[in-house]
Amino acid sequence: MIPRKHAILAAKAASLALVAATLSTTATTASADEGMWTFDGFPAAQMKADYGWAPDQAWLDKVRASAVRLTGGCSASFVSGQGLILTNHHCVASCLYDNSTGENDLLEHGYIAASLRDEKKCPGQQAEVVTKIADVTGDVKAAIGSLTGEALTKARDAKIAEIESAGCTDTAKFRCQVVTLFGGGQYKLYTYRKYSDVRLVWSPEDRAATFGGDPDNFNFPRYSLDGSFLRAYEDGKPVKTPVHLTWNPRAPKADEATFVVGNPGSTSRLYTLSQLAFEREVRLPVTVATMSELRGRLIRAMEESAEHQREGLDMLNGVENSLKVYIGRTKALNDPAFTAKLALAEKDLRSKSAGNAAIGDPWSQVDTAVDAYRALYLPYRYDAPSGSLYGYAQSLVYAAAEREKPNAERLPGYTDSTLPLTEKRLLDEAPVYPWLDELQMAWSLSKAREYLGVDDPQTRLLLGKESPEGLSERLVSGTKLADPAYRKQLWDGGMAAIKASDDPMIQYALKLEPNQRALKKQVDEAYAGPVTQAGAKLADARFAAYGDTLYPDATFTLRISYGRVKGWTERGNEVPFQTTMGGTFERATGAEPFDLPSQFAAKQSGIDMDATYDFVTTNDIIGGNSGSPVIDKAGTVIGAAFDGNIHSLGGNYGYDPVLNRTVVVSTAALQEALETIYPAPRIVKELAAK
Amino acid sequence: MIPRKHAILAAKAASLALVAATLSTTATTASADEGMWTFDGFPAAQMKADYGWAPDQAWLDKVRASAVRLTGGCSASFVSGQGLILTNHHCVASCLYDNSTGENDLLEHGYIAASLRDEKKCPGQQAEVVTKIADVTGDVKAAIGSLTGEALTKARDAKIAEIESAGCTDTAKFRCQVVTLFGGGQYKLYTYRKYSDVRLVWSPEDRAATFGGDPDNFNFPRYSLDGSFLRAYEDGKPVKTPVHLTWNPRAPKADEATFVVGNPGSTSRLYTLSQLAFEREVRLPVTVATMSELRGRLIRAMEESAEHQREGLDMLNGVENSLKVYIGRTKALNDPAFTAKLALAEKDLRSKSAGNAAIGDPWSQVDTAVDAYRALYLPYRYDAPSGSLYGYAQSLVYAAAEREKPNAERLPGYTDSTLPLTEKRLLDEAPVYPWLDELQMAWSLSKAREYLGVDDPQTRLLLGKESPEGLSERLVSGTKLADPAYRKQLWDGGMAAIKASDDPMIQYALKLEPNQRALKKQVDEAYAGPVTQAGAKLADARFAAYGDTLYPDATFTLRISYGRVKGWTERGNEVPFQTTMGGTFERATGAEPFDLPSQFAAKQSGIDMDATYDFVTTNDIIGGNSGSPVIDKAGTVIGAAFDGNIHSLGGNYGYDPVLNRTVVVSTAALQEALETIYPAPRIVKELAAK
Repeated sequence: MIPRKHAILAAKAASLALVAATLSTTATTASADEGMWTFDGFPAAQMKADYGWAPDQAWLDKVRASAVRLTGGCSASFVSGQGLILTNHHCVASCLYDNSTGENDLLEHGYIAASLRDEKKCPGQQAEVVTKIADVTGDVKAAIGSLTGEALTKARDAKIAEIESAGCTDTAKFRCQVVTLFGGGQYKLYTYRKYSDVRLVWSPEDRAATFGGDPDNFNFPRYSLDGSFLRAYEDGKPVKTPVHLTWNPRAPKADEATFVVGNPGSTSRLYTLSQLAFEREVRLPVTVATMSELRGRLIRAMEESAEHQREGLDMLNGVENSLKVYIGRTKALNDPAFTAKLALAEKDLRSKSAGNAAIGDPWSQVDTAVDAYRALYLPYRYDAPSGSLYGYAQSLVYAAAEREKPNAERLPGYTDSTLPLTEKRLLDEAPVYPWLDELQMAWSLSKAREYLGVDDPQTRLLLGKESPEGLSERLVSGTKLADPAYRKQLWDGGMAAIKASDDPMIQYALKLEPNQRALKKQVDEAYAGPVTQAGAKLADARFAAYGDTLYPDATFTLRISYGRVKGWTERGNEVPFQTTMGGTFERATGAEPFDLPSQFAAKQSGIDMDATYDFVTTNDIIGGNSGSPVIDKAGTVIGAAFDGNIHSLGGNYGYDPVLNRTVVVSTAALQEALETIYPAPRIVKELAAK
Repeated sequence: MIPRKHAILAAKAASLALVAATLSTTATTASADEGMWTFDGFPAAQMKADYGWAPDQAWLDKVRASAVRLTGGCSASFVSGQGLILTNHHCVASCLYDNSTGENDLLEHGYIAASLRDEKKCPGQQAEVVTKIADVTGDVKAAIGSLTGEALTKARDAKIAEIESAGCTDTAKFRCQVVTLFGGGQYKLYTYRKYSDVRLVWSPEDRAATFGGDPDNFNFPRYSLDGSFLRAYEDGKPVKTPVHLTWNPRAPKADEATFVVGNPGSTSRLYTLSQLAFEREVRLPVTVATMSELRGRLIRAMEESAEHQREGLDMLNGVENSLKVYIGRTKALNDPAFTAKLALAEKDLRSKSAGNAAIGDPWSQVDTAVDAYRALYLPYRYDAPSGSLYGYAQSLVYAAAEREKPNAERLPGYTDSTLPLTEKRLLDEAPVYPWLDELQMAWSLSKAREYLGVDDPQTRLLLGKESPEGLSERLVSGTKLADPAYRKQLWDGGMAAIKASDDPMIQYALKLEPNQRALKKQVDEAYAGPVTQAGAKLADARFAAYGDTLYPDATFTLRISYGRVKGWTERGNEVPFQTTMGGTFERATGAEPFDLPSQFAAKQSGIDMDATYDFVTTNDIIGGNSGSPVIDKAGTVIGAAFDGNIHSLGGNYGYDPVLNRTVVVSTAALQEALETIYPAPRIVKELAAK
């Protein structure tokens, strides 16, 4: 499917910055420092063996209670008793963007709230803290029974909706989520305390965070102040968070142990070889080619005016970041040495499972499903255009239809447990820039036509006799969906209001809906169902072969990874583990994106040039981990993870302990910024309070 | 290397339109209809066996003498005694573009020269006819002897320069070219009669040729009037061409034999598996990603104004066409069934060559060379920016340096035999659009930085402390190279004038030159040299294994392919071999690119709706064949080849007789256009004369 507004945001944030790579030599058991562990499965014994020390339960409990998931697609942590949240600048970029105007560009100038009153709401953003994890594998597997195909996915989703609904009765304060682990091997019920009012507290100039821009992204040495602060509110007041991490603005020490706690978005380390082949042969080539074109269209459009520059920046950053990720993955899967290791891992698991009748041959089942998916993939990907306005229309149409059904029969985003966030995202006020919507729509529709073909019935459904450009212009200029009041009216009015609406975007979304549902049914039947069934068997095979100290693929749910502060060797040269703030001035050229942010430059004489700026660790992370606190043995926070190095981009498929690194902005640098560059004495004081 | 102006044009034309695909089941011997045969190696016996008939030498001689190579990268043929040339519309698009102004857009409106006086010169274009082919394999191989690496390429190029220079003393009328066949297995001296004054005679509206635009490109059924006429001049008068093809404006007949005679640009059917892996893993991913971004930048820039729309169209068409080719190649190499056949072919050749000491193991030699090339590829690709103005600067700098050397020591484009065309391309007047040059330069420099890395010494050489955008703006706005008089002054002034010039683009080209030369040396030493050496052995192996009825890879030199008029089966549906002109009106939607050209639409009532428009044949062709005459057994011309179907895009690596088709605009449709739509009675009369 074409990414929609929120899907784009989530995918963007999920792929943003934090791709740490990992390639165990066999992927059978985790190699040193490999693993994004669940909190109920932390490998304390293994860490103790490697590091001579491991956290106890009290340590883990406190850290878990301090860890925050941002529904925009990032990670974060509480760092004061008054709901203060540390995360990355790029995780609040959308909030800065949504609060900006032509006259006051918060992205460019940064933002310092002088008092609580000045803290600004972030549209669509919600903070969530895990309070409980329960195993519901038995319940879900019992509901699935011996069902297959679409029947399996329906039964599974119905049971999940039921468990989530029963688990959280107070949906204003809690959210329940059944998390699928090991591709269907385990199901866990996560209960979150949620805070749907999140506000912006402090953010540096955009260029301080994006110094070096796309060229330096996923690279190191790095000079990036990619940190910001938010605050969770409830009933209009800051939330009390007595359990929080202690702010520790010190420099990291070489080789010291570090923990990264956050929500890695998605990995594919348990993919079979046929799934990997599909990635390399089908999904990645289409994705890289089409996103590259979108990038080009955006770059040029932004050169047209200062408004376009400002209004397009958030999307361009997301597109360029994702593109780098996909190009990195392509490179990894085109590296024969890398894929040979993945092949070896599958061979090992197959041989260890041979003759185990309970396991059978899930690999062949996946092969068959992937073959079927190859034929469905392009129609499924191109069943709708991109753009925030179309995204609103589609959400409204689906919500109206789904809310008429019993909870257990609804699509995943529209069940009792998920509906509040869907509603919040739909109704929160956020700016819409028509040119940007038109650009995305025209691009995505022209790609649909290109990849499906002019004479494909789905192309005809999408375009009729119109051109991608003409249709996009007509729909974007004719719709009233940019107005939150109109969205609210349609949301409240349900299907009757939707059907009565003469809004062209709503009518268009209604027209596309039946085909989208039919495609989803086909994909569930031929791919998602069989792969879930096989996934459960593959998980059993892994547990049987390697024991239960395994970590599941990332699912944008809370994980902890351990590692250490450590540089690496790049073509024979040592890359030191840290940079200093003074290095920024040496790297600056004056030309974008190596131009110094103006306030940063103005404070040059006051900045401690030797202060640690960014540093790297061996922690195993990936997109979605952005903003994760980097924690030392004492449980204090010494940085916020914001990126991986270039070698980490294959981390979606496997972890390489020799080269892959997490990139962190140090608390030392943030402290320097809070004190000297973007002074916020109120926050300095709050962070210092014990 | 980044494509330069003329390289872009050549590559564009070479990849334009005519990619016919071919995948013999083993690639050991040609399957039915496979093969782009040299005129001195036509497989008459094989064709006779397949078709019960084959042309005799007189037939071949006449066709050869009628066949025209256009140095812009296309094929063509003489179709009257007065130098009238039939080719594709897309082969004259650059000429239309170069002769257009804001007030008079020839591309949009088409062009009909009312009299000889109105025929317009095409900048940079030259027509060439093969008059002689001689075998010089022995001479070149003797010069190479047992040399290796860069020494080999130097000795080879020196000998080639010597042979070419000795072969054509009258360089005003003749051009000599030593053609390398079978990757170094054979060397042939081609002598061409050349006509450097080529003028535009007749061209339809652009939309008539590009109806369906990029979406329909490489597809069939098709409704495209992709034909145009040029004329060769000498001393200001039309050239007498008593030997020419007879114009035959009839419909094709199902299954009748057809010949395509032209200059297929380049194929890689003799690549070893390691070369194919390099394509799939390295070259194609970079190419598709970066060209897609260029496409996006261009699309958006062209939406900015009517001038940009007009001025950018020729480049966008070229970029989109090439991109489709590269995406098609990627798909072919990502198709396990396709690559399995290529692997089988290599296996067969290896096994047939086993134990032959004279052959040894050229495969390993290629593997080693490819490994070395992997490390050199990105620097070599990104050793210069794109853009016509930089292209002029680089040509001027190289020409000044090379002309000071003896002929045998010069780089290939600057030897006595090649210098006149280089000079013509440099000095012919052609419009330059600064925004387009800036766009290309900034794009290519930002890609260089992206792929080489910010800290790479070559990135620093290319950019200094400037940004890609700032540098491009400074060089493009500061240079005087858009003025042909200034180029002439520098050309005539040689190295002294170049060094004395304060032109910033010239200074920039001078700055980059030493690094470019060093890279070329490295590539010659580690890759080009070893691959030439191995290529000779691989050719020997093929001749030993399969006899001498083999065709070499395409080299943009004259070839003939035979096949037949034939549709194919697409997912169970028969695709008829032809379309009719009336089909255009059914396909038209009114929205670009399915909008009817205005004059075409205006003549609707007069057009014969049942006239054959386009048709397909099984001929084996590829980019560069664009404009090739499609000839029947009687030796008369019944169409001009202008495209391949979508299945043909893997044809770079192998031919599939079941699915791959050449797409042809019929002489019947062109006659209808000349008589009714874009009336040119003068040309109708000239074509009808016997």
